[in-house]
Amino acid sequence: MFSNLSAGALGLPLDHTTSIDLAAKHGFGGVDPDLGYFRSLGSTTAVAEHAAAVRDKGLEWGMTGLPVPLDGSAAEFRQALVDLPEALELLTAAGVTRVGTWMRPMHDDLDYLRNWRLHVGRLALVAELLADAGLRIGLEYIGPKTFWSTERFPFIHSLREARELIADSGATNVGIILDSYHWYTAGESAADLAGLTDADIVSVDINDARADRERDEQQDLDRRLPYDTGVIDLEGFMGAVHAAGYSGPVKVEPFMKSLAEQTVDEVLADISARLDRAVAEA
Amino acid sequence: MFSNLSAGALGLPLDHTTSIDLAAKHGFGGVDPDLGYFRSLGSTTAVAEHAAAVRDKGLEWGMTGLPVPLDGSAAEFRQALVDLPEALELLTAAGVTRVGTWMRPMHDDLDYLRNWRLHVGRLALVAELLADAGLRIGLEYIGPKTFWSTERFPFIHSLREARELIADSGATNVGIILDSYHWYTAGESAADLAGLTDADIVSVDINDARADRERDEQQDLDRRLPYDTGVIDLEGFMGAVHAAGYSGPVKVEPFMKSLAEQTVDEVLADISARLDRAVAEA
Amino acid sequence: MFSNLSAGALGLPLDHTTSIDLAAKHGFGGVDPDLGYFRSLGSTTAVAEHAAAVRDKGLEWGMTGLPVPLDGSAAEFRQALVDLPEALELLTAAGVTRVGTWMRPMHDDLDYLRNWRLHVGRLALVAELLADAGLRIGLEYIGPKTFWSTERFPFIHSLREARELIADSGATNVGIILDSYHWYTAGESAADLAGLTDADIVSVDINDARADRERDEQQDLDRRLPYDTGVIDLEGFMGAVHAAGYSGPVKVEPFMKSLAEQTVDEVLADISARLDRAVAEA
Amino acid sequence: MFSNLSAGALGLPLDHTTSIDLAAKHGFGGVDPDLGYFRSLGSTTAVAEHAAAVRDKGLEWGMTGLPVPLDGSAAEFRQALVDLPEALELLTAAGVTRVGTWMRPMHDDLDYLRNWRLHVGRLALVAELLADAGLRIGLEYIGPKTFWSTERFPFIHSLREARELIADSGATNVGIILDSYHWYTAGESAADLAGLTDADIVSVDINDARADRERDEQQDLDRRLPYDTGVIDLEGFMGAVHAAGYSGPVKVEPFMKSLAEQTVDEVLADISARLDRAVAEA
Repeated sequence: MFSNLSAGALGLPLDHTTSIDLAAKHGFGGVDPDLGYFRSLGSTTAVAEHAAAVRDKGLEWGMTGLPVPLDGSAAEFRQALVDLPEALELLTAAGVTRVGTWMRPMHDDLDYLRNWRLHVGRLALVAELLADAGLRIGLEYIGPKTFWSTERFPFIHSLREARELIADSGATNVGIILDSYHWYTAGESAADLAGLTDADIVSVDINDARADRERDEQQDLDRRLPYDTGVIDLEGFMGAVHAAGYSGPVKVEPFMKSLAEQTVDEVLADISARLDRAVAEA
Repeated sequence: MFSNLSAGALGLPLDHTTSIDLAAKHGFGGVDPDLGYFRSLGSTTAVAEHAAAVRDKGLEWGMTGLPVPLDGSAAEFRQALVDLPEALELLTAAGVTRVGTWMRPMHDDLDYLRNWRLHVGRLALVAELLADAGLRIGLEYIGPKTFWSTERFPFIHSLREARELIADSGATNVGIILDSYHWYTAGESAADLAGLTDADIVSVDINDARADRERDEQQDLDRRLPYDTGVIDLEGFMGAVHAAGYSGPVKVEPFMKSLAEQTVDEVLADISARLDRAVAEA
Repeated sequence: MFSNLSAGALGLPLDHTTSIDLAAKHGFGGVDPDLGYFRSLGSTTAVAEHAAAVRDKGLEWGMTGLPVPLDGSAAEFRQALVDLPEALELLTAAGVTRVGTWMRPMHDDLDYLRNWRLHVGRLALVAELLADAGLRIGLEYIGPKTFWSTERFPFIHSLREARELIADSGATNVGIILDSYHWYTAGESAADLAGLTDADIVSVDINDARADRERDEQQDLDRRLPYDTGVIDLEGFMGAVHAAGYSGPVKVEPFMKSLAEQTVDEVLADISARLDRAVAEA
Repeated sequence: MFSNLSAGALGLPLDHTTSIDLAAKHGFGGVDPDLGYFRSLGSTTAVAEHAAAVRDKGLEWGMTGLPVPLDGSAAEFRQALVDLPEALELLTAAGVTRVGTWMRPMHDDLDYLRNWRLHVGRLALVAELLADAGLRIGLEYIGPKTFWSTERFPFIHSLREARELIADSGATNVGIILDSYHWYTAGESAADLAGLTDADIVSVDINDARADRERDEQQDLDRRLPYDTGVIDLEGFMGAVHAAGYSGPVKVEPFMKSLAEQTVDEVLADISARLDRAVAEA
């Protein structure tokens, strides 16, 4: 696995080329691809050249967003399928292999089974289209009860449910986005991660939680940097990730506005060091 | 449909024969059967005679509890099946046709699909055993968010989910216990009741809710008497029950300790009048 | 309901305008719409005028094919969704309300549950897109064992399965294409049709079966004209269709090459009379 | 893994003690337990002593039948649960760990999904009861098309379906009875066995098929001895079983009446040699 700079996940307003330079400067192993930037290059040839330059800096591609809203209206979903080939062509030209999305853990109209069927059906379709382009899809489950309990029908908010959804879809190019924050808020332990393999994981996020809140009071958008509070057992978490033989990106997504009070270089030096700690073999 | 005296649902410590006398005195149309009392009579002949005497007082049987814990451990569930024939023989002798249970709307270990499969499988089995004895099963869904959000995995807490569970079971002798309190707390309206028929409903409960709480703050065990606060649209609710052609018992289950401050006769006179209002054609 | 001329189902090579003229001449109540012809008219205005002219002849629209292959590859399915709006615009302009497709009753790679999920997911999506255009989808199950037993994994081949698929999809604009030939070969009786309503049926086909074959030996593409052999209980079948209050088209689809030995007028006079017999109230 | 003498599977009318003696004489590694014999011993102490004597002969226990009919009527299934503890006590006393049953691959009334739910629900219940007694359940899928196509609704008849059923049940003490004959008739190859582990397999049967019939014409009850005709790729099959690290019994179940023409010793010497060949590392 490798440390990955995802400027968006850190809330840093960096453009793609700046991200690449800073990722290299601060010793990250990878950086997120940017579909908008690829598009601006005007040709797949230019995209391939750009990707080669990024590789020459010693950087791998992290993950970019799945350009299809799994739970949009039928009309929105259809339009995304219409637009999909252009995005796939660019991602393929760049050699990107990981896209991801999170699953909204509740719904006001669709009960659990209806929402399940919606996700199974659309995931199977999108996964087949992306498999043809050599792409894997990561699905992120969202753990905080303060989120999944806010509408009439809670939905997937645990690893077990997410894995069963993937199994039901029949897709072989779909895995989990494993975020320590969701793992903790879902009430999961290292035992829940036993048996995972590299094929089951598309991306890893490490975050810590506030020390002054109980697990069920934690907010999705108010976290702490990894190893900050020690609320989350990151040793247990990363131990399981290592045991899975995971080979992909590891990033931080803290949703902390206070990062804006530091310089970008200060933030990235700090994040890179925390990720290096996580990535190092236990 | 008919008004029904369920002493247990009112929190009144009345024995079975007293309940029968008071049901007749206060003009109820029915009274709940009492399996323990039937057992004490010592023979199915005696039970049949008792049931005839109740009928002679102009009373129908309401509903008694399903003597099988749908979500117990396998060992508990098996033991209940071992004991079941004795209970069915007594209920059959008495001419009882309705038994019911409520579904726990959350679980700390079983996620939604596992819990769904547990209920589908056991409900199908129990329903077939009860169908052979001429009994129908009522399932009550529990609406308050203050209840279903208290463990890791919320489960069925709406009419739509309960009806789909019944459909999945394939059983034709299972219906809903329709409680206005759960209907209200589940965020449902009269439109959600459209299309129900007498075959879909095994029992009806009418209750009102506290006026000083929002819907999502209502507590399962802190309700108000029907027509008390007007928080719950009982006209819409009972209109739909009438439209369904419902022919069974209607009772009150307020979980109000303050009822103990009145005499039993005062309580029953009040409850009977409220039920009469509900049962009367709109 | 009304008798409907479907030249394609009769194996007659009639173009659309000829079909319309012959439908009117032979007293049919409706005729199948022809998307290719609509397209050739060059504008939705012209399509609307054409449809008005057809209505002026006293003809209603029957059903045309769903322009999406539910079980195609993901790439084929996606392409059909890309092309769908153009077809929907033409069908809407013409006032067509019924499209239909049949379900392949077996698969060599997808086992039953995988195939089920494929159909549920795609049907839900397509139904939502068509609902926005005011269209209903008819699904035809295929009954002959000589067909469903020919690959490794049999799939839906009965009314009950087809109805459960529709229920699982959650769509409210999907119904059954009810063909007496599949009803017979599936081993179904009038009792299986009880409870159907007009909303459950999108199209009705009536055919008879060969008298020299057992039910399980009947071939999908070798049938007889309705009322020919009496093998199929068309009185029972149509009685149930009448009881459902069905309001749509009734057609014949005999797969009989011998019809080519008669003149078109002879064939249509015969078919129209047979349909009139079926449509007439029992 | 070890070769196992299952007299019943060979059609030999041997009583339990004779089977044990002959298993030892002919070098089998195990022998099937016999619940009826255990019962006849009169006490769990006597059963434990008997089991110790069998172990002293160098024999392990094979598998005995699951004493619960998964697809019986509700009344039959309930009765089997009533009787279950007595059987479990005897099997536990003997140290038996494997029981098994086959799944009927079709049904005349239950369509695929209804039958699936029946099996999932009952399997989950029985598996939990047996887990408490330290027993694992083996499920055998039946492959021949000449069997699964004989009623209205085909059911599970492939490894993939059987494994998904087990996954749906949520049970961790259920695995497959892997029979080369069903694997062949289901159209499966060694690739379908990839990824299986010892925990996925409860018993292994090896048989060959008639050389004068096509795969889809093979009959369930008319097989050949392993390595006889070479129709079935037993090298590929056993290679995958070895790769899974399988540790349990391997037996032969040929359904060949012609075995009765040989002496029992001739038959067992032959069978033992064939099993030794299969059990030997490739």
